[in-house]
Amino acid sequence: MEKFELHILGCGSALPTARHFSTSQVLNVRDKLFMIDCGEGAQLQFRKSRLKFSRLNHIFISHLHGDHCFGLLGLISTLNLLGRTAELHIHSPQGLEELLRPMLDFFNRQMTYRVAFHPFETREATLVYEDRSLTVTTIPLRHRLPTCGFLFAEKPRPNHILREMTDFYQVPVYELNRIKNGADFVTPDGEVIPNERLTHPADPPRRYAYCSDTLPLASVAEQVKGVDLLFHEATFADEDAPRAKETFHTTATQAASLARDADVKRLLIGHFSARYEDENMLLKQACKVFPATLLAKEGLSLSI
Amino acid sequence: MEKFELHILGCGSALPTARHFSTSQVLNVRDKLFMIDCGEGAQLQFRKSRLKFSRLNHIFISHLHGDHCFGLLGLISTLNLLGRTAELHIHSPQGLEELLRPMLDFFNRQMTYRVAFHPFETREATLVYEDRSLTVTTIPLRHRLPTCGFLFAEKPRPNHILREMTDFYQVPVYELNRIKNGADFVTPDGEVIPNERLTHPADPPRRYAYCSDTLPLASVAEQVKGVDLLFHEATFADEDAPRAKETFHTTATQAASLARDADVKRLLIGHFSARYEDENMLLKQACKVFPATLLAKEGLSLSI
Repeated sequence: MEKFELHILGCGSALPTARHFSTSQVLNVRDKLFMIDCGEGAQLQFRKSRLKFSRLNHIFISHLHGDHCFGLLGLISTLNLLGRTAELHIHSPQGLEELLRPMLDFFNRQMTYRVAFHPFETREATLVYEDRSLTVTTIPLRHRLPTCGFLFAEKPRPNHILREMTDFYQVPVYELNRIKNGADFVTPDGEVIPNERLTHPADPPRRYAYCSDTLPLASVAEQVKGVDLLFHEATFADEDAPRAKETFHTTATQAASLARDADVKRLLIGHFSARYEDENMLLKQACKVFPATLLAKEGLSLSI
Repeated sequence: MEKFELHILGCGSALPTARHFSTSQVLNVRDKLFMIDCGEGAQLQFRKSRLKFSRLNHIFISHLHGDHCFGLLGLISTLNLLGRTAELHIHSPQGLEELLRPMLDFFNRQMTYRVAFHPFETREATLVYEDRSLTVTTIPLRHRLPTCGFLFAEKPRPNHILREMTDFYQVPVYELNRIKNGADFVTPDGEVIPNERLTHPADPPRRYAYCSDTLPLASVAEQVKGVDLLFHEATFADEDAPRAKETFHTTATQAASLARDADVKRLLIGHFSARYEDENMLLKQACKVFPATLLAKEGLSLSI
């Protein structure tokens, strides 16, 4: 299976602790790296994870709170010091470029590469990235200011040719692409060889959904139905549900209920409030509702 | 002895490595904390060092390069989330407020405290802070843009009264302050009791000098003469002296020579280039010239 791997660079929330960096993740899809949020220290954690800056071309920012984007200045400056030439694309809600540009210009007198900002609408699910093998779609969330999560979806891939069978039926080379894409083969004698005899199906496309920060939303459960991995914030424990609601956040149990309703394969919780010394308590609460829950942690990498 | 203690939060240079945070230090003078430079991640390192945010009222920024000030946004925002009310004073070369203000305003819709910026002239040594027991004076440096180091100097303290002696000579209470400050005592009979018999001298005032980033300067050796501890950048090894000169930095041997010329008690080197896997090589080069050299390291704290 080709790489589809999540790296947690930081999973704390707004207040720093001795245990957590603020939010940032990297999704490695076949050695293309996609950064999701970029809290302070993201570039340090990136280095520690032994990921390659040269593989990073797209950064997705969920919303304009400092703990999700204060790492951009340092990261962008570092890439400049390293003499990067490839464009860097930053996808975020409206307003980020206006905020960053004056500081970027001052602190990087000469830029060796271009930073392209791509603001997106936050009210409707929107395709914000696409290549041959992947799409990234926003997931509208509800926080104290415009916020979106991101759904990373592999595209369906062609079936694998069973070489022995195509040899046996003497399938000409020019037919192979059609067959990969599901067509049957008709022999010169008019015999129809069904596609299933000539191919075995490709691995099903994988999907990763990232949701932080937000109130729990039924619309999210709808949009992330059945994903292989759902990251959902679980800033608060159940005891602090009123505080969660007040600050537009989610509790561990709410995140787990959403995962269950969405019938996802695995749930990863993070964005932990600084008030909890031990997040295993959050894990326990979530596991009661949705046993396939994991706790995010700096340095964690997960194959999806 | 009262506290005069240096904490290294970060001692790397512009490029992040898996080993170093960018530059930041905290000087603890009798439980008042003074931050010196504030690279990305400084607030995280501050927390890890178990220092108290409430004790921090003054931050000194040597120059406006990102690796010396990108941590300010996160730190200021965190103090706001914590509901700080005391003013925070930031001393730096001209221009910092104009750069930070728009982002501070956006990311902190309501500020619970005031951030006061105090720009200083960088061409002449200037007193930038003073309280009952301490002065902070800038140290003009030569880097690619206006840059100053900082000299933290305890004020001389009154002598300690030898209670047995003042009792013996029946010194009246109203004379004690004069005696603490060095006066002799004259008995009712006209006998002069010299001050040395009535007191023992206070601990000599301590001094800490911070110099980063800069070419090595004779004027610095002059200004930091005899300090108890000198932090001096040693970004490069001797082999890379041309690169040091080109980028307005100092080599390990140059830092050590300066420490020797200034006759300081101890030298601490830091601001290491990312190119060196092992900074002990820098330490060795410095120790050849000035044996009382120490290597900075994240988490290091030194009593001065």
